[in-house]
Amino acid sequence: MGKNNKKRGDFMNNFTYDIGTKIHFGTDALDYIGEEAKKYADKILLTYGGGSIKKNGVYDKVIKELEGAGIEVFELSGIQPNPRIDSVREGVRILKENGIGAILAVGGGSTIDASKFMAAGACADFDPWKFISEKRPMSPAIPLLSVLTMAATGSEMDCGGVITNPETKEKLSSGHADTRPKVSFLNPELTYTVSKFQTAAGSADILSHIFETYFNIDGTMFMLDRIMEALMKTVIKYGPIAIKDPENYEARANLMWASSWAINDFISDSSQAAWTVHPIEHELSAFYDITHGLGLAILTPRWMEYCLSEKTVHKFVDLGVNVFDLDKDQEPMEIARQTIEKVKKFFFEDLGLDSNLRKVGIDERHFDEMSKKACGKAGVKKGFIDLRPEDVKKIYEMCLED
Amino acid sequence: MGKNNKKRGDFMNNFTYDIGTKIHFGTDALDYIGEEAKKYADKILLTYGGGSIKKNGVYDKVIKELEGAGIEVFELSGIQPNPRIDSVREGVRILKENGIGAILAVGGGSTIDASKFMAAGACADFDPWKFISEKRPMSPAIPLLSVLTMAATGSEMDCGGVITNPETKEKLSSGHADTRPKVSFLNPELTYTVSKFQTAAGSADILSHIFETYFNIDGTMFMLDRIMEALMKTVIKYGPIAIKDPENYEARANLMWASSWAINDFISDSSQAAWTVHPIEHELSAFYDITHGLGLAILTPRWMEYCLSEKTVHKFVDLGVNVFDLDKDQEPMEIARQTIEKVKKFFFEDLGLDSNLRKVGIDERHFDEMSKKACGKAGVKKGFIDLRPEDVKKIYEMCLED
Repeated sequence: MGKNNKKRGDFMNNFTYDIGTKIHFGTDALDYIGEEAKKYADKILLTYGGGSIKKNGVYDKVIKELEGAGIEVFELSGIQPNPRIDSVREGVRILKENGIGAILAVGGGSTIDASKFMAAGACADFDPWKFISEKRPMSPAIPLLSVLTMAATGSEMDCGGVITNPETKEKLSSGHADTRPKVSFLNPELTYTVSKFQTAAGSADILSHIFETYFNIDGTMFMLDRIMEALMKTVIKYGPIAIKDPENYEARANLMWASSWAINDFISDSSQAAWTVHPIEHELSAFYDITHGLGLAILTPRWMEYCLSEKTVHKFVDLGVNVFDLDKDQEPMEIARQTIEKVKKFFFEDLGLDSNLRKVGIDERHFDEMSKKACGKAGVKKGFIDLRPEDVKKIYEMCLED
Repeated sequence: MGKNNKKRGDFMNNFTYDIGTKIHFGTDALDYIGEEAKKYADKILLTYGGGSIKKNGVYDKVIKELEGAGIEVFELSGIQPNPRIDSVREGVRILKENGIGAILAVGGGSTIDASKFMAAGACADFDPWKFISEKRPMSPAIPLLSVLTMAATGSEMDCGGVITNPETKEKLSSGHADTRPKVSFLNPELTYTVSKFQTAAGSADILSHIFETYFNIDGTMFMLDRIMEALMKTVIKYGPIAIKDPENYEARANLMWASSWAINDFISDSSQAAWTVHPIEHELSAFYDITHGLGLAILTPRWMEYCLSEKTVHKFVDLGVNVFDLDKDQEPMEIARQTIEKVKKFFFEDLGLDSNLRKVGIDERHFDEMSKKACGKAGVKKGFIDLRPEDVKKIYEMCLED
């Protein structure tokens, strides 16, 4: 960290830490749904996805808990991966028509993300897409609770959500402290049935959330860097175990708790944490509807190669030495190159994800448009290194081949 | 962690995570006092220690903030290190007589700990020592806020407090979710004036809090073990820097934030975390009024030596390899011995603390009584390894010489 007597402004931001989400974690987590939910409302909207929760008993358990607490339950099912603004509109309609006071989202990041927009939309007198298009604040919002069924996005403990508008081919994020879940119920056993592919994609997503904060020139704090490395080690150890042995509680529990802490704001408190890989990926899934974590896995090592320079090499050295146990007595640039190879090996061998865009049916035809969109109206995506559309396009191109 | 398909009960407890303390961290932290305090009460009791805050401007700043928000301020000063139940009684009297709605504690762990007992005492119709002697629950309690001036006990973000009764020579702890501070204001600059000795003792205290949870046979969670190691590395790096260079913001900030996370319940969530070194130390400071962190530093390596066995060696290996960078290819027992030497070097050389009890004027005359008291009425202190009075006495004896 260099010389002593550095003053605050040089490396560490002031911050407010305020993560109020209560978590019930473990095999008995869902037993608390009734008593927690009734603190917030007598009528609750239950949101979920494709109905798998009806097959594995989660739906029955949730209904039993809510009704047992004397809560009137309304439902909105069919929320899709890369959730769409239409689902949000439908949810808002049900909430408003019935005077519903809270939402219980049961699912992965897609269901919880969409529910955040519904929670704010219920308090708004405008179309919820304006949270994105006009950057209207997502506040106030009715209380949101969540039952997590997949470890990936961290939506169960963070403020933000991502929503897709198929008409405009936009996939964008927003969020507010008011949309952070009040209570989340995390039973790792519920993720036993998550497929090998979704487990791999989820692990890639968690790791990417940590990378987005870790790869930061300004605002680093030693303690938080080391904690990020602890979280990375957790994902790198347990992602492959969960794929091979889906009912390994230890692996599922570690992945689930790591998913929450990778993005709940704790690790990013002292930094700017301007994300770059996620916005680049969002264009991939907005244009092609590919799985978010898969897109991140393909993009990340290329983004790393593109960012690597004398100025940034120290972060790659930290990652390689502290997480991948590389020999620290090598040249920094050599360590950095080995680090990126380790990242590739993790994504494409240990997790078994597809290693380039052609393998998932994507070619260069939309790269120009996607690159521009990824950089937004400002024309530049600020972050670990600032990226302009021509930079983003080069990164996409690097993803075409191994 | 051994074989896959372990079930929950074998190694990881279900838990509820619920840490609602809001933290304003950084050079501007105290600017938020007024707006936060007025959310809780119109009359506030300001508690503090020996008046150093009047010399360094903190007192004036706090008063300006509170009065600027239209809050009526009452005061209780003179709260001592190893705070006594008498201060609590006095605080409760002031709170009750004036119908005061909240407390702002300004100081280190002693002031904040004593204020927790006052916060609960204000809602009780019995003498506050009964929170200890009769284990009466410290709930309900009026809201507590804190301004931290020393990084050590973590009281700014946890539920518990320690209180001393000079009449009975007892120093004991209690706590409740209701006594966890609602808001804490952490400006690392306020710790610039903490003496070298107190900085060393505070660093030892933080490290001991982590050890108490880390050295655990049951209930470990890989992710949390790695996070504990991240926190330990932080203390080991920055304790000595803060001693040499008291106005090093980076060092003070890392120590301060680590102090909160060492004990706010996050790292102990999955485990039983039965503490043993702290109760053994509490007898030292109850009988001799020595500085808590100094007592912990002297006791810890002896306790480690006493606990080391084939059954426990793996934790020492983890600590040595992951924190002290020891060569992992050695025999486990050899790594463990080197680990304990590293711990001694840290406490007694890097932090410069006295290395045995004789150096601080303590001999064996009270060891029998202290050993019995440390084990409580049950006659055994359960923890990493269970300790009976004869075990505790041996540990005290090991502390007499280097």
